[in-house]
Amino acid sequence: MDGAEKPLNSLRYNNEMSLFVAVDIGGTHMRAASYTSDSLEPLKHNKVETLASEAGGFERLLGVIESIWPSGESVEAIGLGSPGPLDPHTGYLLAPPNNPEWHNFPLAPKISEHFGVKAYLDNDANLAGLAEYRYGAGQGHHHVLYLTISTGVGGGVIIDDRLLQGYHGLAAELGHSIVEPHGEICSCGFAGHLEAYSSGTAIVKRFCSELEAGSRSSLKRGDEITAQSIAEAAMAGDPLANQVYQRAGEYLGIAVASFLHTFDPSIVIFGGGVSQVGDLLFKPFHASLQNRVFYPRYLEGVTFTNAALGDNAGLLGALALARMMSGK
Amino acid sequence: MDGAEKPLNSLRYNNEMSLFVAVDIGGTHMRAASYTSDSLEPLKHNKVETLASEAGGFERLLGVIESIWPSGESVEAIGLGSPGPLDPHTGYLLAPPNNPEWHNFPLAPKISEHFGVKAYLDNDANLAGLAEYRYGAGQGHHHVLYLTISTGVGGGVIIDDRLLQGYHGLAAELGHSIVEPHGEICSCGFAGHLEAYSSGTAIVKRFCSELEAGSRSSLKRGDEITAQSIAEAAMAGDPLANQVYQRAGEYLGIAVASFLHTFDPSIVIFGGGVSQVGDLLFKPFHASLQNRVFYPRYLEGVTFTNAALGDNAGLLGALALARMMSGK
Repeated sequence: MDGAEKPLNSLRYNNEMSLFVAVDIGGTHMRAASYTSDSLEPLKHNKVETLASEAGGFERLLGVIESIWPSGESVEAIGLGSPGPLDPHTGYLLAPPNNPEWHNFPLAPKISEHFGVKAYLDNDANLAGLAEYRYGAGQGHHHVLYLTISTGVGGGVIIDDRLLQGYHGLAAELGHSIVEPHGEICSCGFAGHLEAYSSGTAIVKRFCSELEAGSRSSLKRGDEITAQSIAEAAMAGDPLANQVYQRAGEYLGIAVASFLHTFDPSIVIFGGGVSQVGDLLFKPFHASLQNRVFYPRYLEGVTFTNAALGDNAGLLGALALARMMSGK
Repeated sequence: MDGAEKPLNSLRYNNEMSLFVAVDIGGTHMRAASYTSDSLEPLKHNKVETLASEAGGFERLLGVIESIWPSGESVEAIGLGSPGPLDPHTGYLLAPPNNPEWHNFPLAPKISEHFGVKAYLDNDANLAGLAEYRYGAGQGHHHVLYLTISTGVGGGVIIDDRLLQGYHGLAAELGHSIVEPHGEICSCGFAGHLEAYSSGTAIVKRFCSELEAGSRSSLKRGDEITAQSIAEAAMAGDPLANQVYQRAGEYLGIAVASFLHTFDPSIVIFGGGVSQVGDLLFKPFHASLQNRVFYPRYLEGVTFTNAALGDNAGLLGALALARMMSGK
């Protein structure tokens, strides 16, 4: 009704020119990019080192956003992704890892105030899941389970085309699901979480403790031992390295069985560096999952796949959030 | 726009007179009731024995619905609740317990065809959760976790004011979450489910096996041993009975910690007979939960409470489903 009073050309022009800014705050870099309302190709993009433990992080963040700010155009919203815990409802960072400056920090409100544009915040795993749903492997699905398997394990869940956030905005912390109640201690300090079994950190920790206990391996104490080097050893036939990935895959299967019983998704998408190892992790995963799903219909027509967006998932997730909150 | 052509009185009359029929198919009884669009007091209600293993179940069901059918009034929709597994998207029962006649049975389509009215189906635990959210303990909340602890353990989850159903309609089977991967065998045949630790059946089984193994108790082999009689013995000071409830509560705390990390609800509602025992179950539950929630904010402002609707949850859930699907 309102639109009828404006010239049609002006409406079209405004619509085409509505722009979005996406910001991905990672452990090593803060990245920012600007986009039109219908493209995934950034107009401008830039990055700067995060240096989380050094002062002046917020100023560095403002600088990188300003460097990609589209001149003379109107930005509709800014999307921000960061490691949690954080509150997407208020836009506050609560306790980001290694960054005491940003504890209980009103990130989205301050960014919004500085640029005079609405700003929205959510955690990196939720946003990677949202990005895969909107632009990646999950397109066309309405019920998506995304898991990132990296240093930690994170989750992002889409239910009926909506991002699961929860009352405090802390939902979908699937890496902290309890899979072995009296088991390994997680990086968070609590016992038996999925992350304590299937993350890159857990794989390295298990491998090293078996090595210490006298297990034989082609990798020796003093070698650089990473999830990647263990994977390479496993593929070259190292029994200990294989056994450690076998265990990570088994527990991943146990957890995902419970997630299927819980969310009943039509697609399960794996992102993160550790998910790149392929069969080494996913063969034991699928064997375990098959043994654990209690009713076969949960698996009917369900796709298991790798994430499609790679390193861009963070920025594209922040973009997806900004567009979603603007109804686009 | 359409309405402008009709007399206002007729519109009002139709709106006031839109009626709903609710049906609750339980293990022992099938219950049916009719309601106006805005009241929880049935206009008529009736019940008949389920007799699941006897032929003619569908005719008995039609009979009890016909007996409460409002004469001369227009029914807008029928809501049906039944034990699962079932498909809420198609209205098919898949494999209801003890009822071979109803395997892969198009219950909602057949009911809809018979009465010439839309019919919707979902499982009893989902509907009890929906009923508590709309009419019971969960009113005013947007993120609700409902758990029924009875012969089995079932879940019903509301996320952002919507019932979690999933791709196949099999979501929220929270009793089949894995809490101890190499643990007790569940009634479904799979290892380590919550239901195998915290259901009434699990409590009785554990108690009897401890008794067999020589543990002392005021209850003896040959006594009628039920979750209720064990609870009475526990409250009278029986150590074995206490220990068995302690374990059920501990595992319930482990599971609910993972559910908080997953759904981040603002209220957790417990229904079902076993949840009536109070502190016997909930004291160890809360101690366990406190030890397991990995970030304190999950508990901030969160309510833990008993279900408010009791035996009416089944019918009121079916009513809530019929109204919800009709946009009311």
